[in-house]
Amino acid sequence: MKRRTLHDGSVGSFGLEEAQLPSGKRVTLEILRHPGAAAVVPFMDDERILLLHQYRHAPGGTIWEVPAGKLGPGEDPEACAARELEEETGYRAGRIEPTGVILTSPGFTDERIHLFCAYDLQPGTLQHEHAEHIEIHEVRFSEALDMIERGEIIDAKSIVALYHVARRRDSSR
Amino acid sequence: MKRRTLHDGSVGSFGLEEAQLPSGKRVTLEILRHPGAAAVVPFMDDERILLLHQYRHAPGGTIWEVPAGKLGPGEDPEACAARELEEETGYRAGRIEPTGVILTSPGFTDERIHLFCAYDLQPGTLQHEHAEHIEIHEVRFSEALDMIERGEIIDAKSIVALYHVARRRDSSR
Repeated sequence: MKRRTLHDGSVGSFGLEEAQLPSGKRVTLEILRHPGAAAVVPFMDDERILLLHQYRHAPGGTIWEVPAGKLGPGEDPEACAARELEEETGYRAGRIEPTGVILTSPGFTDERIHLFCAYDLQPGTLQHEHAEHIEIHEVRFSEALDMIERGEIIDAKSIVALYHVARRRDSSR
Repeated sequence: MKRRTLHDGSVGSFGLEEAQLPSGKRVTLEILRHPGAAAVVPFMDDERILLLHQYRHAPGGTIWEVPAGKLGPGEDPEACAARELEEETGYRAGRIEPTGVILTSPGFTDERIHLFCAYDLQPGTLQHEHAEHIEIHEVRFSEALDMIERGEIIDAKSIVALYHVARRRDSSR
């Protein structure tokens, strides 16, 4: 595969790739090669979770998200979820469980986000670099689902992470 | 806001932007400005939907998705959903309903996907440009949810679009 990198940066590597479709046809595609990420739904107890209200320059406003961040080089997704949780909320997870994986936008990026739930939270160390434009809110899990329904949570990874938990709970009833 | 565009292409415009965080701190961010997109869950009847099995170069394989595509210049999201549905599946929608909006990856892109359901499908015109690397499958809606659970559907827009319908159905029971 031929690739011409146009920019190598903190988000990943953006470039043009010559790809061969299954039909044999050759096309040139713009691709962002991304290291992958992890996101986590932190449970304070059985009913209450933490959500972040976070400024995001790209969409141009403050949005609701679960804690998340990019994988470091060679970093295990679960370790990344635990690290981002502590950096962004100041809580350390006693237990982390995987709930799924998503591709965020497979038309132009290989970004994969590994989704988790975190339980048995203990006070840890907030990292101020992350915290400066993040507010941490404690909300009921049922309220978070209502926030999706009302269109207040629109971040895809957060919606999938929350829905995955909701369906597990529904099916275990 | 200062911006230096590095590449203007079919996916959008990739560049470096100087942004000011709410704290006043200035940072340079890599941003993909995207025109937005629409995605649609096509219902053949009350229980059966169409899913696409589609080759995607970026993640490097064939994945399950609902029909979707980028907004044309000035195109209304619902018109885009109807157009992509017909181009990719050969079916024209009698009725389209919005179910929500997602941000796919707000850390680096403003890409917003408008989600819909389509009903009362009638034969229309398949566009071969799209079809050459797309297989169309008819599956039960409940089976699509099982495919999410088994980790076979990992495309974020498709999962959210399907979950949105599932929760509406659950709550109307």
